[in-house]
Amino acid sequence: MQTRVAIIGAGPSGLLLGQLLQQAGIDNVVLERQTGDYVLGRIRAGVLEQGTADLMREAGVGARMDAEGLVHEGVELAFHGRRDRIDLKALTGGSTVIVYGQTEVTRDLMAAREASGGTTIYEARNVQLHDVESNTPYVTFEKNGETVTLECDFIAGCDGFHGVSRKTIPADRLTQYERLFPFGWLGLLSDTPPVSHELIYANHPRGFALCSQRSTTRSRYYLQVPLTEKAEDWSDERFWGELKTRLPSDVADTLVTGDSLEKSVAPLRSYVVEPMQYGRLFLVGDAAHIVPPTGAKGLNLAASDVGTLYRILRGVYENGRIDWLERYSSIALRRVWKAVRFSWFMTNLLHEFPERDGFDKQMQRIDYEYYTSSNAGLRTIAENYVGLPHEAIE
Amino acid sequence: MQTRVAIIGAGPSGLLLGQLLQQAGIDNVVLERQTGDYVLGRIRAGVLEQGTADLMREAGVGARMDAEGLVHEGVELAFHGRRDRIDLKALTGGSTVIVYGQTEVTRDLMAAREASGGTTIYEARNVQLHDVESNTPYVTFEKNGETVTLECDFIAGCDGFHGVSRKTIPADRLTQYERLFPFGWLGLLSDTPPVSHELIYANHPRGFALCSQRSTTRSRYYLQVPLTEKAEDWSDERFWGELKTRLPSDVADTLVTGDSLEKSVAPLRSYVVEPMQYGRLFLVGDAAHIVPPTGAKGLNLAASDVGTLYRILRGVYENGRIDWLERYSSIALRRVWKAVRFSWFMTNLLHEFPERDGFDKQMQRIDYEYYTSSNAGLRTIAENYVGLPHEAIE
Repeated sequence: MQTRVAIIGAGPSGLLLGQLLQQAGIDNVVLERQTGDYVLGRIRAGVLEQGTADLMREAGVGARMDAEGLVHEGVELAFHGRRDRIDLKALTGGSTVIVYGQTEVTRDLMAAREASGGTTIYEARNVQLHDVESNTPYVTFEKNGETVTLECDFIAGCDGFHGVSRKTIPADRLTQYERLFPFGWLGLLSDTPPVSHELIYANHPRGFALCSQRSTTRSRYYLQVPLTEKAEDWSDERFWGELKTRLPSDVADTLVTGDSLEKSVAPLRSYVVEPMQYGRLFLVGDAAHIVPPTGAKGLNLAASDVGTLYRILRGVYENGRIDWLERYSSIALRRVWKAVRFSWFMTNLLHEFPERDGFDKQMQRIDYEYYTSSNAGLRTIAENYVGLPHEAIE
Repeated sequence: MQTRVAIIGAGPSGLLLGQLLQQAGIDNVVLERQTGDYVLGRIRAGVLEQGTADLMREAGVGARMDAEGLVHEGVELAFHGRRDRIDLKALTGGSTVIVYGQTEVTRDLMAAREASGGTTIYEARNVQLHDVESNTPYVTFEKNGETVTLECDFIAGCDGFHGVSRKTIPADRLTQYERLFPFGWLGLLSDTPPVSHELIYANHPRGFALCSQRSTTRSRYYLQVPLTEKAEDWSDERFWGELKTRLPSDVADTLVTGDSLEKSVAPLRSYVVEPMQYGRLFLVGDAAHIVPPTGAKGLNLAASDVGTLYRILRGVYENGRIDWLERYSSIALRRVWKAVRFSWFMTNLLHEFPERDGFDKQMQRIDYEYYTSSNAGLRTIAENYVGLPHEAIE
């Protein structure tokens, strides 16, 4: 088999890159270890930055998102009972976010790929990348018991934190930065109407809580919990009770509860690897960086990586800009680090850190008070939440 | 002896409070442990916020400051060689700071006090505060070998971190918050023209450096040093050499060096005590809080405490607003905590922290990059540097 760009991973970043390349007439193949249904079954983020939505439209897959996605012009913060609305639209001069579940994004991208005739190989086992530092890299994988070789010009590693792509790069060529937070998020998905039209990020002495949503009928709620907690120890009743305790009382009073569709605990981690490229292999999204979900940056950051790599590859194939290739990592990392910073800032601002001393707790309280009472402070939160501009290649 | 307000300490905050009360016809006595010359000999801050300058004018002591003080419309930051000017005036809609040495502030206040006939008792030894929780507090001290009793309505503790005022309050009535930074500042004063018209706060891998000034002919420079360093181990030559290394090279090239008038090492500390009042005793400035000097907030915070206490005391004596008295601490602390936050933010942003891991160092670098590249970020620095508004009493 031969193609121009081998894309490892059929999550939203791999599929989005594939679709953008399809639109530009650049041949590509997507390899995915799991089945399509498995990929669709992952419960993930649901807040799209304007830049992500624009990229979806550029890829020709924005129609359902624009029809069914919920435009949010604001987001709410709460701190020990106080409530502050961040008016995203007013503070950024018109920017908003769109609530549209990652599952829906993936579904639309899969449909578009099928319509465009792009090749996706699911259940590709034992994927291995070869000769990535040469001009003739190739990928091998097993499909239906046979070993297949895929020759290509470039490889896009869109296979997440645990994928094979990053592991292919010699460890001594990479610098890793990591911060593990001393807690996780217990998430609950339910077919209940969201408690509020907008998202609510709430600090409480018992821990952080988030009221998120996927649609007007499907809610996603989170509780900060110690990493030792297990989802099976949390009955729905216990979850709803704890959530009500942590939310401002007028919010809690209007909360509609119901059976959970899913409950799980996820750790909170910041992780960045530098550089994000090695030879002809380019790392995209979670393969290169992880952010804690406070701030809803994970999927959006993957999308901006995709946008950067896509523009570079177009430059290469359409204008012979081979020289652009080496810029990928530095361009992508500029935006990555700023989103890592914002996610870290929001995580520090809104969670409870039992090990913090009195002074640090005061600094957290005053950080909250300052940033939510100053117009300039509010603007720093708003402009990061809707997403800083995508970086230009030149 | 009898007076309305006993003021402990003849530093700038005690003298400023005394002068404001004089202007309002509220009788007061200032007690100072040291001589006037000793007080004048202290080498301290020199950057006045607009609110501090306004209070000086309100006290009738703004003439020389307005004639000789240097209005600064901006301040410069440098980070690993990059330079960014914070345009204070443009970013805050017209606010600036005035460079006017604390020694000059004190001198003007002393002259005004003498002219107004206010009583200042220097070399008042063994000052003790009595019955501060009653309506008839009094102060005793020794002067020329005799014990004197000063009866009063209220006591203003303007006697600094090591003064007797805070120690008079039972420890179990106070909550203390403290952060010691793992380094100090080595300062050098010299009669040389400042290297730049504006202040330069510079981060460098070898440590922070600050180019400050007292006038167009007197400079004040600082180097971050381990707390174990002693000023006597630093020859002038060694100091200038290290300073040049840490400054951006074009700045270093124009640095005029000369003999030092003074060199000393000061630790960096954040400290706040709550509440700032007990009975009829009110803590003002350093007696209640200390900030690291990054951000030039110490004197200005003392001045806003003075302004708050002055307005409350006028309310009491002119309008019988006894109910205002209990508001002093909560009003003062709102502004104190925000300045403590800003000083901590600037200290974290610009110093080297050898114990920080790779991730934290990246967060420092990106914090710098974000705040100096976003207009909203720049505004948060500018509005805090020129000083947040003084709080109203009602």
